[in-house]
Amino acid sequence: MEEDIIKEIVKRVMDTIDHRKTIPLEVSARHVHLSQKHMEKLFGANYIMSKKKELSQPGQFQYKERVSLIGPKGVLRGVAILGPPRERTQVEISKTDSISLGIKPPIRQSGDLDGSESLYISTDNAVIKVVESVIIAKRHIHMTPEDAEKFNVRDNQRVSVRVNSERPVVFEDVVIRVSSKYKLNMHIDFDEGNAAGYQEDVVCEIVI
Amino acid sequence: MEEDIIKEIVKRVMDTIDHRKTIPLEVSARHVHLSQKHMEKLFGANYIMSKKKELSQPGQFQYKERVSLIGPKGVLRGVAILGPPRERTQVEISKTDSISLGIKPPIRQSGDLDGSESLYISTDNAVIKVVESVIIAKRHIHMTPEDAEKFNVRDNQRVSVRVNSERPVVFEDVVIRVSSKYKLNMHIDFDEGNAAGYQEDVVCEIVI
Repeated sequence: MEEDIIKEIVKRVMDTIDHRKTIPLEVSARHVHLSQKHMEKLFGANYIMSKKKELSQPGQFQYKERVSLIGPKGVLRGVAILGPPRERTQVEISKTDSISLGIKPPIRQSGDLDGSESLYISTDNAVIKVVESVIIAKRHIHMTPEDAEKFNVRDNQRVSVRVNSERPVVFEDVVIRVSSKYKLNMHIDFDEGNAAGYQEDVVCEIVI
Repeated sequence: MEEDIIKEIVKRVMDTIDHRKTIPLEVSARHVHLSQKHMEKLFGANYIMSKKKELSQPGQFQYKERVSLIGPKGVLRGVAILGPPRERTQVEISKTDSISLGIKPPIRQSGDLDGSESLYISTDNAVIKVVESVIIAKRHIHMTPEDAEKFNVRDNQRVSVRVNSERPVVFEDVVIRVSSKYKLNMHIDFDEGNAAGYQEDVVCEIVI
């Protein structure tokens, strides 16, 4: 009996050692971060938003409410809203989405919005125009300072990351983002996920 | 005057040398290859199809006519038909398309259809069910035997290919396909094109 337990412990530790350099991979679906002001315009000043679920990054969550994105060529309905509210509204879509909508957002890091694309956001309650607020998120890895030390990388460094899947890909020019508030996770968009054969439990590894 | 011409010639030759190892990249939109029988069912036995344009691979072309693809969860309209007709109908879609349609096609090489997905194809004239005919095309490079010699690869070899773009990516497990009927071209699908920052004139290079 004790021998079984020891074997199990050894196995689990070995697994940890084998996987110590792997990074969990997450595909971000299209979503919006709303400013408090825009949230009030879209849902009403006295409306209380409902939390649907926590996300992998600590403190981040998804609301139950959804919005539509309206571009010159198309509409995307049922788009997720992530919280908490931000200083400035930010819409993150894939290249595929941008073609449906008929806009050309730049590939940018979160928060880098000047000169980015514009569109309309609607609910049953209101339609607002969000100007220079739409980007295709540049692929990135969230990690803690301890992770950065372990992987021997620094904040804002660019690395190449191999996704080990049925459709193996090396993504170059992946941004490292270090904060004690983060949890280790690589974020790619739906196009990148589909191109890299993403499935649940697929992991990736920094190769440069 | 002659000096200018000589400079221009030297420049052009130098360009050729610099780019001698690059491969043109093409994104294949969703499309179908129809068997003669299915074409007659969908458009009528006496109907004469119209050619729209030649494609990059010699002898291959696109018809003006289009079809709809119908899956359990969605419909894709206006899908291109490529000619000439094939022995067996083959539908090539992206992972994104497969999610809209609600089917799970395997990632396969052209012609490898056994056990693949099924769906309905419709026109104004008819609806047919195509069984084990739907794949996500495995990324590949068409080349001539001369190209294969130059790149030092052989038919069916797997290589890694770097796409040099705003969103640089190395695609691993790319199939080399050699035939004197082919023209040098790497083919990827829309998801892969979007993930790799595809634009006109983007080229790629075999890195392994």
